[in-house]
Amino acid sequence: MGGTDGLFGKHNPLHVTFAGNTLRPYLFFHDAMDPQPGIVPRKIKGFRDIGPQMNELRWHIIRAAAGIYRLYGFEHWDTPLLEYADNLGKYLPDADTVEEGIYSFHNPEAEPMLAGDGREIRNEWDHVVMNRYYLALRYDLTAPLARLYAERLWNDSLKGGLSPDKAPLFRRYQYGPVFRYEYKLDPGRFREFWQVDFDTVGSSDQHVDAEACMILSRAMEAIGLPADSYQVKVNNRKILKGFLSVAGIPEQREDAILRVIDKLDKIGLPGIESELGKGRPDASGAFVPGLNLGQNELSRVMAFLEKFSGTATRTEVLSAIRSEKQMNNDLEEGLNELQTIHDVLNAWEMDETRIVFDPSLVRGMSYYTGPVFEVVSDLSYTDHRGRQRKVGSICGGGRYDGLVERLLGMKIPASGASIGVDRLAELLMMTGQYKASAAGPVLILVFDTTLLNEYHIIAHTLREAGIDTEIYFGAQKGLKKQMAYADRKNSPFAVLMGEDELKKGSVTVKDLRLGRETTDIKDKEEWKNRVQSEIPRDQLIGYIREHL
Amino acid sequence: MGGTDGLFGKHNPLHVTFAGNTLRPYLFFHDAMDPQPGIVPRKIKGFRDIGPQMNELRWHIIRAAAGIYRLYGFEHWDTPLLEYADNLGKYLPDADTVEEGIYSFHNPEAEPMLAGDGREIRNEWDHVVMNRYYLALRYDLTAPLARLYAERLWNDSLKGGLSPDKAPLFRRYQYGPVFRYEYKLDPGRFREFWQVDFDTVGSSDQHVDAEACMILSRAMEAIGLPADSYQVKVNNRKILKGFLSVAGIPEQREDAILRVIDKLDKIGLPGIESELGKGRPDASGAFVPGLNLGQNELSRVMAFLEKFSGTATRTEVLSAIRSEKQMNNDLEEGLNELQTIHDVLNAWEMDETRIVFDPSLVRGMSYYTGPVFEVVSDLSYTDHRGRQRKVGSICGGGRYDGLVERLLGMKIPASGASIGVDRLAELLMMTGQYKASAAGPVLILVFDTTLLNEYHIIAHTLREAGIDTEIYFGAQKGLKKQMAYADRKNSPFAVLMGEDELKKGSVTVKDLRLGRETTDIKDKEEWKNRVQSEIPRDQLIGYIREHL
Repeated sequence: MGGTDGLFGKHNPLHVTFAGNTLRPYLFFHDAMDPQPGIVPRKIKGFRDIGPQMNELRWHIIRAAAGIYRLYGFEHWDTPLLEYADNLGKYLPDADTVEEGIYSFHNPEAEPMLAGDGREIRNEWDHVVMNRYYLALRYDLTAPLARLYAERLWNDSLKGGLSPDKAPLFRRYQYGPVFRYEYKLDPGRFREFWQVDFDTVGSSDQHVDAEACMILSRAMEAIGLPADSYQVKVNNRKILKGFLSVAGIPEQREDAILRVIDKLDKIGLPGIESELGKGRPDASGAFVPGLNLGQNELSRVMAFLEKFSGTATRTEVLSAIRSEKQMNNDLEEGLNELQTIHDVLNAWEMDETRIVFDPSLVRGMSYYTGPVFEVVSDLSYTDHRGRQRKVGSICGGGRYDGLVERLLGMKIPASGASIGVDRLAELLMMTGQYKASAAGPVLILVFDTTLLNEYHIIAHTLREAGIDTEIYFGAQKGLKKQMAYADRKNSPFAVLMGEDELKKGSVTVKDLRLGRETTDIKDKEEWKNRVQSEIPRDQLIGYIREHL
Repeated sequence: MGGTDGLFGKHNPLHVTFAGNTLRPYLFFHDAMDPQPGIVPRKIKGFRDIGPQMNELRWHIIRAAAGIYRLYGFEHWDTPLLEYADNLGKYLPDADTVEEGIYSFHNPEAEPMLAGDGREIRNEWDHVVMNRYYLALRYDLTAPLARLYAERLWNDSLKGGLSPDKAPLFRRYQYGPVFRYEYKLDPGRFREFWQVDFDTVGSSDQHVDAEACMILSRAMEAIGLPADSYQVKVNNRKILKGFLSVAGIPEQREDAILRVIDKLDKIGLPGIESELGKGRPDASGAFVPGLNLGQNELSRVMAFLEKFSGTATRTEVLSAIRSEKQMNNDLEEGLNELQTIHDVLNAWEMDETRIVFDPSLVRGMSYYTGPVFEVVSDLSYTDHRGRQRKVGSICGGGRYDGLVERLLGMKIPASGASIGVDRLAELLMMTGQYKASAAGPVLILVFDTTLLNEYHIIAHTLREAGIDTEIYFGAQKGLKKQMAYADRKNSPFAVLMGEDELKKGSVTVKDLRLGRETTDIKDKEEWKNRVQSEIPRDQLIGYIREHL
């Protein structure tokens, strides 16, 4: 067991020593009546089962987004769920625990240790040195893309046949689950969640970034968000960087300041001012230490943030930046790049309220090198515990040049964005903007088991007409139970046939949707007449089609 | 590091001792010029990147199969990629290696150890005993279904409010990747592959099994397999079991004999005879020890297998079984169940060649308890190494009652089947039965960068008309490179516009598909006329629609 005991003991208040199989360790109980470890059916914390309604919504989002991505010339690629951890770019700790948000584990097989040029490393006796690499569940779809791109060009690069100006253009979209190991799970956060991404690798053109904003906006509308319910916010890291430098802030403090500014949405301008200054107590009462900026620097940063805190058109933001008294290279480059994006958006006649410029936008990930974008929704809703929750950021992206470089040793420009499928699904569900119907099948009730073959024939006919149909085969045969099953499955119709109907060549159809809606009718007979009809068997398809 | 050193050393011929971070271990090299470990972009063995063509095929299969499953009343559910290993039902070894085909690893967090009734186990000082459970990547979609079903009924079951005759009916379909740790990877086998499954839990009705055969057959045709290229083979485990007992074979030898019979497709009747008898040398020359059946038992088993080795109609197989001299309970039950399936298939007028009975079918998994089914394709193809390969089994399923019982402590009947998406995709691809087009976007060539905004307007117009369109933003700007890119993406058209065309209000369109086909034209001018047209800009959409 080696390391397991030690790691186990760390979490166990009494350091009970386990030996042998961890699934059935030897436990030291005080008497023989103590319970034995059992298998309890359960999911891992932060993982979910997804039912038909949520699936309908999830796939609605994916189909809509992927359709827009394809419309802009992106191809559908897929990569493995599991990758070498070093390829994904997180350096792992020296114990086999999972930290830093990544689910990883030891490769079951030892493999040759490789040098940077791909050759096997040999020891002094000329034997290949073996290693058990860490494997990891992908934590996003961008790192695997960098691996895919780098892997395909690796040989060219080794042979010296590649340079950034010869880097092939690659535009792909991808969707699927990604994994984060988060110890503390806030409501609405999961360890497995879906993303639908598009990226362009091999182009440093700002038009690609403008396109990305446009694509995000169009995807939101294809998914069903009203045009006035979201905003695509755009910034360029160079503007923030340039401004901080102009404001006299030393470069080594930039990252810390950006991390504070990144919290603007959560803590507001006063919170930012405190955290850049002397610090402040947070919601739990704990004290958040401040960065202790000098008064002059602090007021310049705050003036900058306040200047852009109101809503303004893209044109207004551009002139506000241009009106800054002092400029430097970064500010000018950032401004020019935003200007290019603006020009392209104008060529598309994209109005100034859906895609906006926000010079205070940082957008978390430290690997972004230029334009960054984020889609935010202003909608809020009441969650199942009665708390008011804002949806906030639902997608984000930007330009990153370092991810491929890590693997290929060469700066390759790349830009793209990711839509958080599950968060968006939650937003649509909770704000009532998408009604997932998850309509179930027509249910043929088993009224008389001697007629089963007849039921099969009816079902077959309906299916041939493309109507989802199920014959009830549950263990509990009572008609009430069968109807309850139809309700659970959200069936639109139930079909009944007994000996009587068989002789007459008819079937009885219950309109279950009508039944679910019609609550104001007290009279049983009237209710029955409304929701139930006996019709000739050969008119069943027509009846259902007409009433669906 | 604990256990890591030991495990590492096991595979390392010279037991080089590593310390610290396994990603960057201290290596003892004979001089300072030796290479340092590097990050090499690569995939884990047995994992794949899936490109647009294979994705098109994969999703064609999933959509077609899922559509048929829905048609029969199955709902779409999804479960996590990662589960507690004990829930999936493989008991894991006592070291953190991965064995028995399952990818598993230690849970990063310690959690309370649970007794069989779900309560936390406490030690003699009344402290909760903690455990780091094994987690595993799902190896199929059936075990997670059993967990899902059991988890939802767990409380009812604990309170005594559940019995098998009250088990709710649950019919779901699911698709996604599953994982197997296979050390030796035969060609065409992968560690991550996709399945699309349907299952009915909570019904012991044979009609459900008949339906499953029908669904598999219809799914194959919806996917595009010609009706005469595949067969759904059906058997009932009880028939084999009953026959072996009648043939005087003791129950404890049954499993071993079934494992041999399961190889019928691979080793043929003579191979079976040897392995049931004295053994035989296999292809590699190694000796496969036989089961040493007595001459009487051996000839009875062989007679049984030979009797059913030819093709026969379902009716003929049923009468052949019925004509067995000795019957017992198992044989009779199996026969009756097959008869029910036959009756239902007849009610559907399902012909006797697409769904057949094969009493020698074992169908691997030991958890099957009654009917088993398998779809086999007789097609073969030549792989990329020039070897002739038979496709063989592409889906399988059956009735299993033990999986839910493991978790719920109660026998719950279940039946279902799984289609191997990737294997089927390979079959369709290699036998040329499905032409994945993976058509790329119309490519607007960047001929003159001052016209970029015009290109955006053209692209926008085409996209509004639903035509996938890309503007070329690659680093290499030459027209030849742009055309090569269009070819790589399988673009149907390239659109060119320079100052001339802009003034005339026209665009030049190249039909790239025609260009790829037209190889017999030697004259450059004639070729250009055939594949290239200058048309008025406002007729571009109409032109592309007409020629697509």
